[in-house]
Order: sequence, then C-alpha cells, then structure tokens
Amino acid sequence: MAVMGPHPAVADVRRAVRLALGDLEPGRLVLAACSGGADSLALAAALGFVVPRAGLRAGLLTVDHGLQPGSGDRAADVVGLAPGLGLDPAEALTVSVGTSGGPEAAARQARYAALSRAAERLGAAAVLLAHTRDDQAETVLLGLARGSGTRSLAGMPALTGIYRRPLLGLGRATTVAACAALGLTPWQDPHNLDARYSRVRVRRRLLPALEDELGPGMAEALARTADLCRDDADALDAWADEVYARSAVPDCALSDIDAVVVAVPELEGVPVAVRRRVLRRAVIDAGAPPGTLAASHVLQIDTLVTAWRGQRRIEVPGGVAVVRRYDTLIFARQTDSPFS
Amino acid sequence: MAVMGPHPAVADVRRAVRLALGDLEPGRLVLAACSGGADSLALAAALGFVVPRAGLRAGLLTVDHGLQPGSGDRAADVVGLAPGLGLDPAEALTVSVGTSGGPEAAARQARYAALSRAAERLGAAAVLLAHTRDDQAETVLLGLARGSGTRSLAGMPALTGIYRRPLLGLGRATTVAACAALGLTPWQDPHNLDARYSRVRVRRRLLPALEDELGPGMAEALARTADLCRDDADALDAWADEVYARSAVPDCALSDIDAVVVAVPELEGVPVAVRRRVLRRAVIDAGAPPGTLAASHVLQIDTLVTAWRGQRRIEVPGGVAVVRRYDTLIFARQTDSPFS
Repeated sequence: MAVMGPHPAVADVRRAVRLALGDLEPGRLVLAACSGGADSLALAAALGFVVPRAGLRAGLLTVDHGLQPGSGDRAADVVGLAPGLGLDPAEALTVSVGTSGGPEAAARQARYAALSRAAERLGAAAVLLAHTRDDQAETVLLGLARGSGTRSLAGMPALTGIYRRPLLGLGRATTVAACAALGLTPWQDPHNLDARYSRVRVRRRLLPALEDELGPGMAEALARTADLCRDDADALDAWADEVYARSAVPDCALSDIDAVVVAVPELEGVPVAVRRRVLRRAVIDAGAPPGTLAASHVLQIDTLVTAWRGQRRIEVPGGVAVVRRYDTLIFARQTDSPFS
Repeated sequence: MAVMGPHPAVADVRRAVRLALGDLEPGRLVLAACSGGADSLALAAALGFVVPRAGLRAGLLTVDHGLQPGSGDRAADVVGLAPGLGLDPAEALTVSVGTSGGPEAAARQARYAALSRAAERLGAAAVLLAHTRDDQAETVLLGLARGSGTRSLAGMPALTGIYRRPLLGLGRATTVAACAALGLTPWQDPHNLDARYSRVRVRRRLLPALEDELGPGMAEALARTADLCRDDADALDAWADEVYARSAVPDCALSDIDAVVVAVPELEGVPVAVRRRVLRRAVIDAGAPPGTLAASHVLQIDTLVTAWRGQRRIEVPGGVAVVRRYDTLIFARQTDSPFS
C-alpha cells in the first residue's frame, strides 16, 4: 500500500508554521491564538503537529471578548479541542472591550493586551497569529482608503515582538481546505458577515469587485504591495531617524519647557520624503498625538523649511505649535510655550 | 451692477493653470494637449485666458489617432475652437498607432511621441496635460493591481520634462462644470465607455464601489497616496543610486565582455529596500529588459548576498545571469558570459 502524505493544504499550513519557528531554541513554548475560525484552527492544528518534531512545546490561547451571546461557551469549546491537537497549556482569556477608537480597534486592543499578558505569564517565546494573505490584502485596501502613504500600505509584518504570522503567504482557501481535510469544523463568526464592519465590506464586496474588474490574483498583488511598502517604509524611517538624531538641537535656552528644537540646515538637501518624516517625528515628540496628525499638518510645517518668508507659528493637534527662529524650528506645546 | 466673477469651477481651473506656469520666462510658448474632452477643453480654455496676463504665448495640439471613424473631423473641430479660446498656433497631429504593449500603451506612446516632436518644432517651453485627480486615482488602482510596489503607486507626476499636469488637484466634476459654465460642449470619447479597457472599468465600476464601501473621498485618498509614494520612491531611488555608484566595480578583468560587477560588502548593512533597488539597476544595466524583470527575480539575486552558500548562477530574462565570486556579484549576458 502506498504511504499517503497529508492533504496538500494541510502540508502547506504545516510547512509555513515550521518555517516560522526555525529560529527558536529547543524546549521553548509557542502559543497559537485561536478563535476557532478556519484560519486559526488550521494554524493550531499545524502547530500541534509540527512542534514535537521541532523540539518545542505548544499551547493555545483563545480570547472571549464577551461581545456575543454564548461567547464563553465557544471559548470553552476551543480550549476543549486543544488536547486533541497536541496543545497544552490551553486557556480561554476573558477580556472586557472598551469603546475607544471604535468597536474593531477596541476589541483588537483588548485582545492583544490579554494575549501579551498570558504569553508573559506562561513564558512563551512566540504567539502565532493566523492572518492570511487575504487578511493582508484587506489591510492594504483599508490603508489605501486612509491615503496616508507607504506605511499605511505596509499591512501586517510577519514578526512583531512575540507575535508571528506564519500564514501571510497562504490564501484563506488553504486554511478552509486544511480544516476540512483534518475533519475540523471551524466556527463561523457572525461578525464576519456584518456589513457594518469596513473589513467585512472589503472582504465580501471590494476584493471580489477588484478581481472581477482587474483580473484574478488581486490578493497576491496586494500582499506583495504590502511587503514592498513595508521594506520601503522601514528604510525611509531608518534614514529619517538618522537625520533627526543629527538635526535635533539640545535645547539649552528652552530647558524649562518641553520643546523640540531642530536645526534647519540639516534638513536642507534631504529628500522631501525624509524631511517630512523628520518633521513628523519632531511634532509627535513635542506632544502632538500621532493619530490626529494629518499629512497636511506636516506639509504646512514643511513650508517653514522650504518656503520661509517670516510666517507666523503653525498650530497642530495636541496644542502643539511650531515656529521658525533663524535657523531652527521650535516645536512646543502652547501651554508652556514662549511663543505668545 | 455688481461685477460678476467667473464660475467657481472656471476660477479653479484657471488658478491651477496659472500656478503651473509661474516659473516660465515671459514670451515663451505653452501648448495645451486637447482631445476635446471635458478635462482638456477646460484646460485649453483656462490656458487661453491665463496666458496673456502672464506674458506668455499659448497654443493647442490635438492628436488624431486614426482609430475611430471621423477622428480626423473631430481633430479639425478641436483645432477650430482654438482661435475662440485665444490659442495660436493650433495643430492636429496625425499619428499611426502600433500594437506593441497593448492598444492603450501603443496609443499613448504614439501620442507622446507626436506631442514631443511638435513641441520641439514649435519651440514650446511646456505642454500641458489635462489629467485630473480622478485620472490619478485610476492610475494608482491600476498600479496596485500590478503589485509592484511604491513606484507603481506613484501615479503621474505634475512635471516630467516639458510636460506639466496642472489639474492633478482637481476632480473631473470641476472640468465638466467649467466647460458648462463657459458654454463649451465637450466631446464624449466612446472609448471612455468601452469596458474592454481596464481604465474604464476602474473609473466606472471600481472607484464607485470603493466610495460606496469605504466612504467618499477615495479619489482624494488615492491621489494623496500617489504623491506620498512618489516622494518615497524618489528618495529611495536617490539612495540606491548612491549605493550603486559606490558598489559598482570597474570590471578590469572582464573588460572584453559586457558585465556589471558589484561589491557585496557595500550592500551589507544597507536596508533591503535599497539593496534590492541596487540589484535591480545592476541587472538592468547588464541587459535584462525592465518590463520583464519581476520582483521575484530580484529576490532570488538577493539571496546571493543574504543567504550565500555557494549557489549556482541565477538566470533572469534577457539572457542575463548573475553569479557570486568571492565578494563580488557579476551580472552578464550569457552569450558573452565567462560563466560556463
């Protein structure tokens, strides 16, 4: 009798998980974050399969957001699957979701906080997240709608801190097929059908429309865009860090107030993309909240460098104002400002 | 009686054209490229109005692609409008469109070649193109579908060579309103309704779908993305130019063949976005046709730098092969290659 290998989808998910763990020391604990949906169920199953062969230990975390009736039962069901998948420890983390930044952002924030705490408590070396290429494509489209440039097109990285996303190279169809091949029944999150969520509208309406009009392979093209934009944004951020470090003036004369002082000559001859990143850093360091700072604010500050003709101070969110004095830009909160 | 100003849309188009001409010396000739459609008709009218006040001269060019019945008559009609708009000289340029790269690319290539030749013959300082913010948004979406990164998201620049695009900050609705206010009847290009063109599908189906699902302002967000990505791509290209110049080795030993030699140590410690741009330049300089070179080829070459373990040569389109020898990468056409 021929020896049967695993179903190709199962093999793909296992391979992706194995590759993502290659750098971990033997004996370390790796946790799969699992909602019970197809993506994270396939991930958890692959982790349980791969880990003993890699000399690691594997566990599972599931988060009960308490937002839907029966969410506690479902979390318990997911934990109940863990022994069969070779995952131990397995825990349900109960969180309370706030409202700040909208329902999706609040749920995300509560979820990551709980996962990070549990990972630390359990001494885990990594937490695997099940985002696929399709999630990445959706993230890029949502970033595109913000119109805030390369970083917002960069999607999700494969690695941030303890979090790893081994499945970014695989389509959602692969995780669905892997679950079916393994006889696992994924949970269908009703939120995934709720068109009040912009991500759901992107997934169910926009991506199909893009594929219809511009040809198949849009998810791949968007995921590729994310990778390229992330590399580009990283390189430009590194360049801007260097210029910012060189141009920031220790503010002796202003030491009683919380000001950032930047030398204008260091910004001249630097490409506009780098200069504006430096200005953005300075204004955030001076106290402007990053979320409320628009590209238009930075453009305005930039005119103090590129079109200086004795302008008045420029006010940005967070009560921060920017003035030019001779060859320096001074960024300070107006409450403790010497500008008036 | 109150003095009536122009219609706001007319004023917007005139202001945009005036701003785009600020750096030209008095007496120079500026040409509007005009198809007779709303965008370029509004542009031509604004140019005729603005130019005498700016001490410049203005003319009009229209291109007869010979692709539709009656295209010659239409071109003559557009030329016939010129005197009334204050534009002289006015010429219809007849081109023959090839097939290379598809119908849209072939028509574009023939059109720009004819415009450039006419501009040179007439001694023009600038040729104005009527692309609007909506055209820019469409260009970004088409670039996104290619998935080839920041440069392909950068859209069209406001300035390239003699070409200027003063209307990139205005929506198509503004040019339509300006024509109506001026009593000008734009030509409706039947190609603009032909769903065989990907740009038409983007315009008529995808952009409306994006606005429906993600909110209004998508064209603005996409145009802003283009501006930011263009600046980013320019900065990274400049960085890559510098690294390439530093790392390219004058190829003494290989002077009988057409090879590009790059010093690997100069590429180490350089961000991946910059290193891959350098490798792309080198492989193109060695003879690989840019259009056929995919990101995946560059990724493969990159492994010769980042994951060197004595790999064989890597072959890319155009018959170019890349090998590593000690601390250099050698890029050469295989016909005159010393690799075999």
